[in-house]
Amino acid sequence: MKTDGAMLHPLASGDGPEPELMCIFGTGDLGRSLGLRLLQCGYRVVYGSRRPHSCGPLPEGAQVMTHEESARSAKMIFVCVHREHYEFLEKMAPQLERKVLVDLSNNLKKNMYMEANAVYLQRLVPKAAVVKGLNTLSAWALQNGLLAGRQVYLCGNNEEAKRDVAEMATKLGLTVVDKGSLSAAKEVEDFPLQLFPEWRMPLYVAFGLSAFFFLYLVIRDIVYAYVENDEDISYRIMISLANKITPVVSLIMLALCYLPGAIAGFLQLYRGTKYSRFPNWLDRWMLCRKQLGLLALGFALLHVIYSLIIPARYSDRQRVISNVLNEVKKNTTTPLYFDNTSAWRNDSLYALGILGFFLFVLLGLTSLPSVGGTLSWREFSFVQSTLGYLTLLLSTAHCYIYAWDRFLRKSTYKWYTPPDFMLCLIVPSVTLVLKLILVLPCVNRPLMRIRQGWERNRPKDEMGELKATNM
Amino acid sequence: MKTDGAMLHPLASGDGPEPELMCIFGTGDLGRSLGLRLLQCGYRVVYGSRRPHSCGPLPEGAQVMTHEESARSAKMIFVCVHREHYEFLEKMAPQLERKVLVDLSNNLKKNMYMEANAVYLQRLVPKAAVVKGLNTLSAWALQNGLLAGRQVYLCGNNEEAKRDVAEMATKLGLTVVDKGSLSAAKEVEDFPLQLFPEWRMPLYVAFGLSAFFFLYLVIRDIVYAYVENDEDISYRIMISLANKITPVVSLIMLALCYLPGAIAGFLQLYRGTKYSRFPNWLDRWMLCRKQLGLLALGFALLHVIYSLIIPARYSDRQRVISNVLNEVKKNTTTPLYFDNTSAWRNDSLYALGILGFFLFVLLGLTSLPSVGGTLSWREFSFVQSTLGYLTLLLSTAHCYIYAWDRFLRKSTYKWYTPPDFMLCLIVPSVTLVLKLILVLPCVNRPLMRIRQGWERNRPKDEMGELKATNM
Amino acid sequence: MKTDGAMLHPLASGDGPEPELMCIFGTGDLGRSLGLRLLQCGYRVVYGSRRPHSCGPLPEGAQVMTHEESARSAKMIFVCVHREHYEFLEKMAPQLERKVLVDLSNNLKKNMYMEANAVYLQRLVPKAAVVKGLNTLSAWALQNGLLAGRQVYLCGNNEEAKRDVAEMATKLGLTVVDKGSLSAAKEVEDFPLQLFPEWRMPLYVAFGLSAFFFLYLVIRDIVYAYVENDEDISYRIMISLANKITPVVSLIMLALCYLPGAIAGFLQLYRGTKYSRFPNWLDRWMLCRKQLGLLALGFALLHVIYSLIIPARYSDRQRVISNVLNEVKKNTTTPLYFDNTSAWRNDSLYALGILGFFLFVLLGLTSLPSVGGTLSWREFSFVQSTLGYLTLLLSTAHCYIYAWDRFLRKSTYKWYTPPDFMLCLIVPSVTLVLKLILVLPCVNRPLMRIRQGWERNRPKDEMGELKATNM
Repeated sequence: MKTDGAMLHPLASGDGPEPELMCIFGTGDLGRSLGLRLLQCGYRVVYGSRRPHSCGPLPEGAQVMTHEESARSAKMIFVCVHREHYEFLEKMAPQLERKVLVDLSNNLKKNMYMEANAVYLQRLVPKAAVVKGLNTLSAWALQNGLLAGRQVYLCGNNEEAKRDVAEMATKLGLTVVDKGSLSAAKEVEDFPLQLFPEWRMPLYVAFGLSAFFFLYLVIRDIVYAYVENDEDISYRIMISLANKITPVVSLIMLALCYLPGAIAGFLQLYRGTKYSRFPNWLDRWMLCRKQLGLLALGFALLHVIYSLIIPARYSDRQRVISNVLNEVKKNTTTPLYFDNTSAWRNDSLYALGILGFFLFVLLGLTSLPSVGGTLSWREFSFVQSTLGYLTLLLSTAHCYIYAWDRFLRKSTYKWYTPPDFMLCLIVPSVTLVLKLILVLPCVNRPLMRIRQGWERNRPKDEMGELKATNM
Repeated sequence: MKTDGAMLHPLASGDGPEPELMCIFGTGDLGRSLGLRLLQCGYRVVYGSRRPHSCGPLPEGAQVMTHEESARSAKMIFVCVHREHYEFLEKMAPQLERKVLVDLSNNLKKNMYMEANAVYLQRLVPKAAVVKGLNTLSAWALQNGLLAGRQVYLCGNNEEAKRDVAEMATKLGLTVVDKGSLSAAKEVEDFPLQLFPEWRMPLYVAFGLSAFFFLYLVIRDIVYAYVENDEDISYRIMISLANKITPVVSLIMLALCYLPGAIAGFLQLYRGTKYSRFPNWLDRWMLCRKQLGLLALGFALLHVIYSLIIPARYSDRQRVISNVLNEVKKNTTTPLYFDNTSAWRNDSLYALGILGFFLFVLLGLTSLPSVGGTLSWREFSFVQSTLGYLTLLLSTAHCYIYAWDRFLRKSTYKWYTPPDFMLCLIVPSVTLVLKLILVLPCVNRPLMRIRQGWERNRPKDEMGELKATNM
Repeated sequence: MKTDGAMLHPLASGDGPEPELMCIFGTGDLGRSLGLRLLQCGYRVVYGSRRPHSCGPLPEGAQVMTHEESARSAKMIFVCVHREHYEFLEKMAPQLERKVLVDLSNNLKKNMYMEANAVYLQRLVPKAAVVKGLNTLSAWALQNGLLAGRQVYLCGNNEEAKRDVAEMATKLGLTVVDKGSLSAAKEVEDFPLQLFPEWRMPLYVAFGLSAFFFLYLVIRDIVYAYVENDEDISYRIMISLANKITPVVSLIMLALCYLPGAIAGFLQLYRGTKYSRFPNWLDRWMLCRKQLGLLALGFALLHVIYSLIIPARYSDRQRVISNVLNEVKKNTTTPLYFDNTSAWRNDSLYALGILGFFLFVLLGLTSLPSVGGTLSWREFSFVQSTLGYLTLLLSTAHCYIYAWDRFLRKSTYKWYTPPDFMLCLIVPSVTLVLKLILVLPCVNRPLMRIRQGWERNRPKDEMGELKATNM
């Protein structure tokens, strides 16, 4: 690294040769912020502008030239210009020959153009090496140095050009993910436009379950009371019903978090190997477990607040007064009859709910990127598996205690339908039973061996051996 | 990178030349930790010490020499010595010629010295290139490897020296922000001494509003009751009053988060361009929106807990008993009269508050750096804008339902003053109306075009065209 | 960096020479993910496999060869093979001479083997330079680019080999911590197997205190009521008792967070220097303050929810009804007698608790890595010290108000034992008194001077002077 050239410098600095020169086409917000960041990371920067003498304030230390001049001086050119104005690049194709063109453009909507911006650019300037990428960075993040560890996507047909851009991006503190050839440009351009894609399925599940239980409970509670008792209790929709829907959906979704893992275990046991791929639906299910769990936590939080507000409600206060008046009328003597079983059951219900929620919050905290990142592999699996199943166990027990002997009462089965708390116990109970089976030593031992690479139906040649060797 | 020199090495290692040598003056906590980190990043380290043979434990692999010897061997020298002891550097100025001196010193208080430490150092050793920076790092963070992505500030008069330091800092995993020439040294030295500067204005607003409403409510509630009814209800200061102040301040501050955005929209519409700068007050207001929102969330959390504790309060319990005794005396018959409208209103009040608070918590979570950093631009704007306005809408509706028909009651206007809930509805209502206007298609369409770079009063020359080209 | 070789490339790219070639032994999950990441960071990758033609899907762009061929072509070899299969490496020792072997292996349990995997590997191939490390990375994290800023540990006997690996790891976005020679391999291999080691002591304290107070309260409350009054109040275990244990343990642990700091201050004052080491127990205590505080926050959260649920409990509702019936029987007239002191006391109790909890949550938030990392040194110390002591003060006051005049009542001392709230006030009171003394100007001034490096019993030679010089 230390060349003789160092002698020519005013300072005996460590890096002999001049820092690399980067060219930026476009002096808008993004171009300016990008230039600033490049300068801060030790690059020299030249801007290409149609009117080099009147293009507004640029970062200190950067030069401005015409497009042609600036392109000639640098090897890497950042195109920070809207796609609508790419034509001028076609005219200067000779100057761009063998240059690396980084296309940072985004569109306002998905599918605005048939052809990805970068593909269009490559077609305009076929002899340049177009690399699509960095388009997920905003001018704001660039200016404020919020890049450290951010993931950026690159794609392009020229491997070397891509490697150069990746190296530059790494110097900027970014983490680069290579998405392959320029055919992935459309996908890369769609990234900044995506809206929680990995949350979509869990949200559908949450909305679907909520809608179903809302209708179910409106019919069973409100309509039933109106039809059978001619009573208007529609006000219950706001809190009582919401406070039945949220715990039910939360419990089911928490169980749905852990069900696919149990199914996968049984599948591996049945197949006798961990090397065959899971069916597609199971793969996708397992990929959205985190989101399922966080949504369940959200519903659980709502359930907690809804429950705590109950004693402050008008309807609850009226009920208390009613109860007392009844007792007065019955001329009840104090001390009032105190049912120890009711007290135990009621307090256990609350205690289990509180502890379950507490563990659930802990689980949620470890899914924060900055917290989860500090955990070792064993810690992460302890929290997500052991604590997770404990949360599910406590929450399910909370629900069973709520159900208690209502299973037996005839009044529970209004219009011959099962109550909501019975419906919501199915999935968690199944999940817990499956897990219980998997935890039995006689089942767990072979499963552990399979997960370490052992195969039951190992082919006679060395293939299986080979696989078991690798980590 | 691979030179012939590699043959001389015991290992055929990838980097031919010797790693760079860094010199550290000072063997205190900071010097030791910095040396450790430099060694871990592949540099060689030599310490300069007045007594090289008795300077305590140093990181393994580092050498110790006299100041003069160590300075001679390295190109970059870290000065980890208190400013009070800089004089010895003046004496060794010849050895420091053309070296890069990194000044990491901090002061105990702001404005302890007229001259920044780095400027003083540069004056002592005029022929060295002094770079101020890295002073925000603590020995503790250096030792524990908590540097990844941390922002550090650099300034200095020699661009090349600065670039060398920036490169070294990047290797240490830091994100470098260049603050310009050495005249910024004072600012850089003040960084570790600053105390939440960006929170100052929002905190003033919060304290100002809280103080105003505290006085207003003390007079309207406590003093009024004492003067007019000769009743001592001063105990209400602790919870009842606090539970009126917190929601009021929270709602106003949440609205203040979104008001500047709406004002900016109207300003852009009026001016017909996004390229003129906003007035200074609006700029500063927009920069503290995040802090305003987080403080509002804090107040909202307090409001939630204050509200949930109400039924457990002594005063509330006494009121319940009083109510029942009154009913008993009136010889009320059960079932008690149940007002469906009251039930609806009361439950809606709570439900809207709970949902608003829930969304508010989501908003707060995305402002955690590690969560917000994983969002795409569209996701971030969806959360902060759409979810944010929904939160404001729900909270304002929560307040309107609380107000209900109290607007009409004469008893509300104690001493002819408007009640607190009326005062606090002004700002949110205005904000929501402004937003509603901006969302109307006939207003939204030109605004969107302006935000994409279109200008109404485009100058006749190509300037405007040029701007619209760039991203 | 720019060599003539650049002319030979299809593109005038910035880096002349070919990117470095990395070899990976093993084509399992880890090997594949590691190769993918290396390719993305601009390295070339070759896999060594026993059956190069049938080893399953590998990352695009990677080559596959036999172990021998691949080892010959690269300088750094990643061993992603289970320890049980290391023997084949012994046979190819000649090809591995002077190569860097990176051992990424982990074991399933601690102490499965006497000898660390890397030591065993070094013994098999004595002429290679074995570096243990990167074993904390999972295939999952590698594949998903979750490496930025992650800390990895390296150890090895060859400094140069270690430096090469460190450089490679830095390019991958990792933060490297050097653990010294290969004798640390066992420790490094135990990292992924560790389970919250820094939480162990605080958890023991929490469980110990909880168990003690549980037994103490069961005896004083439940057994006492059963023995003396023949009353079965065992249902109280679930909530009433839990709601006494959690605040008591939370308050004691919060005080234990701040006690060691105060002790350290007195020790420094007594010794007159900050340069002598603290006793071992104090050092270890100070290192687990964060965990003590977070556990205390967890207990405080439980206490808050337990307290808020009280009015919804069966037992509480029965008590309210009983109270009213008693009043009815006594023929009490309304307005009910309202004790202003009780109202003040009760509301102050709640208000102090709520404010203390609120500050505690703020404290907890700043201990999130991504939040704490954005704070300046002064901000961090303000939050952790000033806000922390304020939290302790409010919580202790909350407890004193709870105690109020119960100190004087004889019924408090059941079976001549002090009540729990009296026991739990000892540690916080002592801590606050100690802090109060340290804050007195006459004590604080010398302490500040000591903390800035001043020494009372400074030796006559320059040693002390020298120390005070350094930062």
